[in-house]
Amino acid sequence: MLKVGICGGSGYTGSELVRILLSHPGVRITVITSERSRGRRVGSLFPHFTGLTGLSYESLIPEKIVKKADFFFMALPHAASQEAVSFFYKSGKHVCDLSADYRLKDPRVYETWYGVRHEHRTVLKRSVYGLPELYRSRIRRARLVANPGCFPTGAILGIYPLAKKGIVDPDSFVIDSKSGTSGAGRKADSSLSFCEVNESFRAYAIATHRHTPEIEQEVSRVAGKPVMVDFTPHLLPVNRGILSTVYARLTGKYTTEELLTLYSKTFGKEPFVRVLDEGRFPDIRNVRGSNFCDVGLKVNERTGTVIVVTAIDNLVKGASGQAVQNMNIMMGFEETSGLNHTPALP
Amino acid sequence: MLKVGICGGSGYTGSELVRILLSHPGVRITVITSERSRGRRVGSLFPHFTGLTGLSYESLIPEKIVKKADFFFMALPHAASQEAVSFFYKSGKHVCDLSADYRLKDPRVYETWYGVRHEHRTVLKRSVYGLPELYRSRIRRARLVANPGCFPTGAILGIYPLAKKGIVDPDSFVIDSKSGTSGAGRKADSSLSFCEVNESFRAYAIATHRHTPEIEQEVSRVAGKPVMVDFTPHLLPVNRGILSTVYARLTGKYTTEELLTLYSKTFGKEPFVRVLDEGRFPDIRNVRGSNFCDVGLKVNERTGTVIVVTAIDNLVKGASGQAVQNMNIMMGFEETSGLNHTPALP
Amino acid sequence: MLKVGICGGSGYTGSELVRILLSHPGVRITVITSERSRGRRVGSLFPHFTGLTGLSYESLIPEKIVKKADFFFMALPHAASQEAVSFFYKSGKHVCDLSADYRLKDPRVYETWYGVRHEHRTVLKRSVYGLPELYRSRIRRARLVANPGCFPTGAILGIYPLAKKGIVDPDSFVIDSKSGTSGAGRKADSSLSFCEVNESFRAYAIATHRHTPEIEQEVSRVAGKPVMVDFTPHLLPVNRGILSTVYARLTGKYTTEELLTLYSKTFGKEPFVRVLDEGRFPDIRNVRGSNFCDVGLKVNERTGTVIVVTAIDNLVKGASGQAVQNMNIMMGFEETSGLNHTPALP
Amino acid sequence: MLKVGICGGSGYTGSELVRILLSHPGVRITVITSERSRGRRVGSLFPHFTGLTGLSYESLIPEKIVKKADFFFMALPHAASQEAVSFFYKSGKHVCDLSADYRLKDPRVYETWYGVRHEHRTVLKRSVYGLPELYRSRIRRARLVANPGCFPTGAILGIYPLAKKGIVDPDSFVIDSKSGTSGAGRKADSSLSFCEVNESFRAYAIATHRHTPEIEQEVSRVAGKPVMVDFTPHLLPVNRGILSTVYARLTGKYTTEELLTLYSKTFGKEPFVRVLDEGRFPDIRNVRGSNFCDVGLKVNERTGTVIVVTAIDNLVKGASGQAVQNMNIMMGFEETSGLNHTPALP
Repeated sequence: MLKVGICGGSGYTGSELVRILLSHPGVRITVITSERSRGRRVGSLFPHFTGLTGLSYESLIPEKIVKKADFFFMALPHAASQEAVSFFYKSGKHVCDLSADYRLKDPRVYETWYGVRHEHRTVLKRSVYGLPELYRSRIRRARLVANPGCFPTGAILGIYPLAKKGIVDPDSFVIDSKSGTSGAGRKADSSLSFCEVNESFRAYAIATHRHTPEIEQEVSRVAGKPVMVDFTPHLLPVNRGILSTVYARLTGKYTTEELLTLYSKTFGKEPFVRVLDEGRFPDIRNVRGSNFCDVGLKVNERTGTVIVVTAIDNLVKGASGQAVQNMNIMMGFEETSGLNHTPALP
Repeated sequence: MLKVGICGGSGYTGSELVRILLSHPGVRITVITSERSRGRRVGSLFPHFTGLTGLSYESLIPEKIVKKADFFFMALPHAASQEAVSFFYKSGKHVCDLSADYRLKDPRVYETWYGVRHEHRTVLKRSVYGLPELYRSRIRRARLVANPGCFPTGAILGIYPLAKKGIVDPDSFVIDSKSGTSGAGRKADSSLSFCEVNESFRAYAIATHRHTPEIEQEVSRVAGKPVMVDFTPHLLPVNRGILSTVYARLTGKYTTEELLTLYSKTFGKEPFVRVLDEGRFPDIRNVRGSNFCDVGLKVNERTGTVIVVTAIDNLVKGASGQAVQNMNIMMGFEETSGLNHTPALP
Repeated sequence: MLKVGICGGSGYTGSELVRILLSHPGVRITVITSERSRGRRVGSLFPHFTGLTGLSYESLIPEKIVKKADFFFMALPHAASQEAVSFFYKSGKHVCDLSADYRLKDPRVYETWYGVRHEHRTVLKRSVYGLPELYRSRIRRARLVANPGCFPTGAILGIYPLAKKGIVDPDSFVIDSKSGTSGAGRKADSSLSFCEVNESFRAYAIATHRHTPEIEQEVSRVAGKPVMVDFTPHLLPVNRGILSTVYARLTGKYTTEELLTLYSKTFGKEPFVRVLDEGRFPDIRNVRGSNFCDVGLKVNERTGTVIVVTAIDNLVKGASGQAVQNMNIMMGFEETSGLNHTPALP
Repeated sequence: MLKVGICGGSGYTGSELVRILLSHPGVRITVITSERSRGRRVGSLFPHFTGLTGLSYESLIPEKIVKKADFFFMALPHAASQEAVSFFYKSGKHVCDLSADYRLKDPRVYETWYGVRHEHRTVLKRSVYGLPELYRSRIRRARLVANPGCFPTGAILGIYPLAKKGIVDPDSFVIDSKSGTSGAGRKADSSLSFCEVNESFRAYAIATHRHTPEIEQEVSRVAGKPVMVDFTPHLLPVNRGILSTVYARLTGKYTTEELLTLYSKTFGKEPFVRVLDEGRFPDIRNVRGSNFCDVGLKVNERTGTVIVVTAIDNLVKGASGQAVQNMNIMMGFEETSGLNHTPALP
């Protein structure tokens, strides 16, 4: 049994890691941290775990907990993660970092968008961007994986086949994304209170969201040239799910059928990407609680635009599920271990 | 034009007072207070008011604002209201207090349930409980009205005809109430965040909710003997509305039709109580945004129990609407002035 | 008092017309029709109207009801409206048609998108597209107004200043819209049941929605050349509201501030368009129940794209409210009569 | 591998059976029926199953499908189930019936509440009421189990320790239940459409709901005398979950702690009942997607009433999960097989 630690376990990604790992046959959670809830039982903070785990939160003292596990999931806030990740990595542990700290390869881009310097650049160089559909073989050999952001996961998977094939104008990407409220985390913020979100819908961080450079980094790499995108997130009055509607100008004439064939070939063997039949489009509810990314698309033959729609559960494929998928790859488990959740409808 | 002040205007009852008073033909808001938002425009804190009012928040300095208005709505937290209400009252102003501070006639009961002493007992003696359907003539002569709590409003209106007529066992009242989340106020509290309330439902403050003694005070008075009730509030994943399901043992044989006739007679001339036809029951959505209290009932002839269901909008008839209704009565306006909102469905 | 008839009054646009007209000081509803609910009281089908109107539904027999009113709102399904509108128009009545039948000036375009022939082309020629912000003076002289679709209203108002000024590439419009579920109408359809919509989010009618040619007609006219747009509607799990996120490539360098000035100048005197300050963006909840269209925008200086966001209540500015606004203009009422609803939050 | 058939597989209980059985290690679904969807793939009707099962619906021709499986789940509408259940039972198969047809032991009571005669009384005599916490040993020996209704499951589990111990007045039970909308099934009914349920809350079938005699049958048996209860269901704007608030008059003085001890002893070894610590109460979200029944309680020492609150997922412990639990018991599987779902929050 692999001994696993979770640093930052009192948020939604932390509790979701617990949920997934409890059903993983090869893993045991040996330590979970939270400063505010230290000493408290996990089942007391999250009553849905009542009777399912005896774990209690402890303080994140790296020197103390490093011995307790061989694999660490880091679910700390951005910037706070830099130091701790570096410590565990240098101690020889395997690490999957769910923060943004090790995703952007260029530390200047990181500094521009996150407003803090990157102090661990040699470690940063060793990190692999943890999108298995693009980087599986590198993840297999990595000891540090930077788990992708929730928006980038859905956006990049939607764009990847088009950009790789080079059949769209790379300067034309419009990514209009809509996220469930758990994407904002578990916090006391009156703008996230029930009455402020329910029966509401709004865009936020227009043209300034921090996931923009992450999408651009990966799309640029695939496109083979620097690409900038228009990315607009919106807040949905649902608990979970991200739906991204991606628009791109086709450089030639293609049918919906031809592009669906391209997508099916690209993702055919992927265990967690489901390319939908022509005429079918994703709904966030169809992936809820699961690690799936559903993809549908349509060519608008009148305008020459392709519209790709992807749906993920932001807490699973967009965070904790993908983190476990990365762990499975890094540690030689079956890639789908612990991730066989069937979405529950309605 | 009556000059009106709102003390504590940055919460939901405060903003709802603004909404209602903006459409009142005989009133002008001349001052509105908020400590945290002082200096800020009302339309900036509440963007739905953009372009509708030029008001800005100021600090609640009683000596300073007392001159600015002739009628004061006090929408301050419990306990915080005591002093300010007393000041405005003693300054000769008309006051409608939306807090609980002047509702309980017995200061010991107040102290037991609210944990603070009542320091203004002579003023307390002058306050009238502001449920117009029970106390209209006294409200007309009052200079201080204690606006009822949201749960008591729905519960008492449902119980009143039964208790007055003396046809149920007064010790048998079970009041099972369900409230929309705006009843908890506008605050940063992670247990009220969207993800914690949406797709959720729970009881709270079982057998200990502070609205219990308020219900008991009024039911006891009508029943002519001390009455204790079982009252359980629940939190509904909706913005607005309280539905109360009230159970009581009938002391004789009555049909649903007979009791509906009793209710219709009791409330026949009330502008804001709608007694529904046999077979019809209230839904919170039918009163949303309005000052109506809808009432339906059914006799369970198998068990001898009468089940009464009432629905109000907790922010209107349960708070700000009823406060304006009280102001209308106190100041000689048409009782329905500013309160002609038709519920908007869906 | 103007005598007003509503044909097709059992849907959401019909009930919303009732709600608005009940508060209109110059109007009396003299007839309301519904085939399925004929003989039934309006307050029985829509219990929120209990006690507010004594109206009952009757059958739509044009010859019979034509005498009962001088102004007719037609809220019938597309295609079904053609004949009835023509009849009332030819009978000398004033008509506002909420269906799509008289919006598209080119009957071939109508036939292509709606699959039926237009049989009343001479009447079609007399109809004016009822977007007051673009056509106020023509509406004033019209006897037949085609009330715009819900999506086109929000989209065109967002695009209009850009297209008129000619500062964006007219072939670059991407309109990503999200609509509350009342936009689908009031019907028994399992795909619209609570459990299928709640906690769900999906795109639909991608590249094929019938509001596309309506948007294109108006944008082409303003741009002075034929324009095609990418328009994708999505279904939001809320009752009311449409938020449209519009993307367009700027042909020169402009700041957010410059474009907001352009919008403020364009809409400065409009009673129902609110251009938001820089850094502020619309939320559907801020316009709920009201006739407002809120507009915000941002220039993405990295990509040269302008992102415009508009929010309307699909049943008010997107349907019944705009219809009453058109009636007010046509019949010489104050343009805001009956439309002074302050949004109710939360 | 046990071959299992699902009759009536196109509703929510049917799809939930598929979800649960797909993760059951000892079972294979060999046939699933639906008249309306026959010939259609399960993953086409329920897109969340895309890629997870190759099953297609077929017609329910008993003679034809009886050979295909050894265990049959019957998820047909009430009355429609009688004949089919009898056929499979008489063919020597094991059957778990999710309809109400074999729950009420007295066929006259069935006829009174369901309005149809029971035509298979000898088979009815063999059926066991499938609440494992009360009837585990009889279920183990049964070949026909009548799976309890959703409301009775939560209500009876809440009442059982009190009634068995005989410490409450059995004529005082008030059961105030609130159910998510999936309890109404998957159908095209405009009163269940999103806009009619969202932001709404209402009671229904007051004093007349068909689950009443089922609760009374079981409570009477435990209490050892005929008992009638007041039971009021309400419709919650959530997908899943039933919360029942049960009130009963205590016949003596008991503390909350004493009663919690009683409940813990009664349910101590139950794998799916979680008795919560003092001061904690159930929330439907904590059991969502799982087979748990959470129970909390409080004694109101002022009134002498005990208030018990239970929460279940109406589609799992209230239907398909409990059905699989019954199958596990009947067929000798581990009782929790296929039922180890951890609730997913939020």
